[in-house]
Amino acid sequence: MDTPKSKHITWTDSHVTYAMRTERNRHQGAVVWFTGLSGAGKTTLAQLVERELFALGAHCYILDGDNVRHGLNRDLGFSPADRTENIRRIGEVANLMRDSGMICLTAFISPYLADRATARATCPTGSFFEVYCRCDLAECERRDPKGLYQKARAGKIPEFTGISAPYEEPNAPELVLETDRHTPDACAGQVLAMLRERGILVS
Amino acid sequence: MDTPKSKHITWTDSHVTYAMRTERNRHQGAVVWFTGLSGAGKTTLAQLVERELFALGAHCYILDGDNVRHGLNRDLGFSPADRTENIRRIGEVANLMRDSGMICLTAFISPYLADRATARATCPTGSFFEVYCRCDLAECERRDPKGLYQKARAGKIPEFTGISAPYEEPNAPELVLETDRHTPDACAGQVLAMLRERGILVS
Repeated sequence: MDTPKSKHITWTDSHVTYAMRTERNRHQGAVVWFTGLSGAGKTTLAQLVERELFALGAHCYILDGDNVRHGLNRDLGFSPADRTENIRRIGEVANLMRDSGMICLTAFISPYLADRATARATCPTGSFFEVYCRCDLAECERRDPKGLYQKARAGKIPEFTGISAPYEEPNAPELVLETDRHTPDACAGQVLAMLRERGILVS
Repeated sequence: MDTPKSKHITWTDSHVTYAMRTERNRHQGAVVWFTGLSGAGKTTLAQLVERELFALGAHCYILDGDNVRHGLNRDLGFSPADRTENIRRIGEVANLMRDSGMICLTAFISPYLADRATARATCPTGSFFEVYCRCDLAECERRDPKGLYQKARAGKIPEFTGISAPYEEPNAPELVLETDRHTPDACAGQVLAMLRERGILVS
């Protein structure tokens, strides 16, 4: 049995800091928040950017419906109040990941201005990047990758963004991607360029 | 303006996988769940282990009251239902961090067996490590690093674990640390040894 060095276990000042993490990672932590209608390409772009970042040696992770809606936020539905709480929690988790030194990519419709403002306010200034995936509703509906617009038009999905629930466009996003006019690769390249320009990635 | 390669943006199969992350990191993702009374040394140990892991080149992060109670779980109190939801969300976030390839250390009293079982069930088998920081209540109360026991005894904190709310000891934790008998460094060493033995860290 060891003899305790001190009778009092005390907090240590030498814990691992954000600066230590980012120095090792050779990039800053950040939250890249993709927003836009269903079918606008948020998840596709997040995955492309993730792949590029990983290839560059960066530590990154995607939060999306697949890993959040069935886990952390499984208790939430699609009412306005639940959508707000959904986005609030995602903002908090994204910020924790950022604080851990990662570049966290989120891919959620996140239709309300106020909710995205809350997510932004969770992060330190300059570390939150709102990326608006702008795409004509008609084009989103034509793509309809999950068949959701068809169901929404048939009245089978209540409160579906763009059909029976509002999407509030960003006022001042860090980046607008015209996903109905440019290729996914070109759009992903714009995100990478932004992260370089803003000092998240070093060159 | 680019010409879209395809009219349909589709999911890519070549996204970054868990295996790719851990191969790069040279360690597995894991959740190390410290549980025990207030004052038992959970946060101190999590910080010591984090420091050691970081020195070994591992990617790790601590979830504790400081970064969770005032953020993600700011809407929750200390009633049994709120404690359960508090731990459920922490388990989900810890698992997301694990999935990102990190070793996530959590430092919460987490007094209920059922809640810790829920957190464990969130993680793949073999990736969740319950570390019971066992310490006599009398010793915790003597340490009282935050002055909480004094307040609880004075009736100023309702439902305080160990005084006016129960702590349910783990049945089968991966590790028991006798924090009232061994030094913090010795206890941290036991955690590192466990992570090596269980294949989370490579030697």
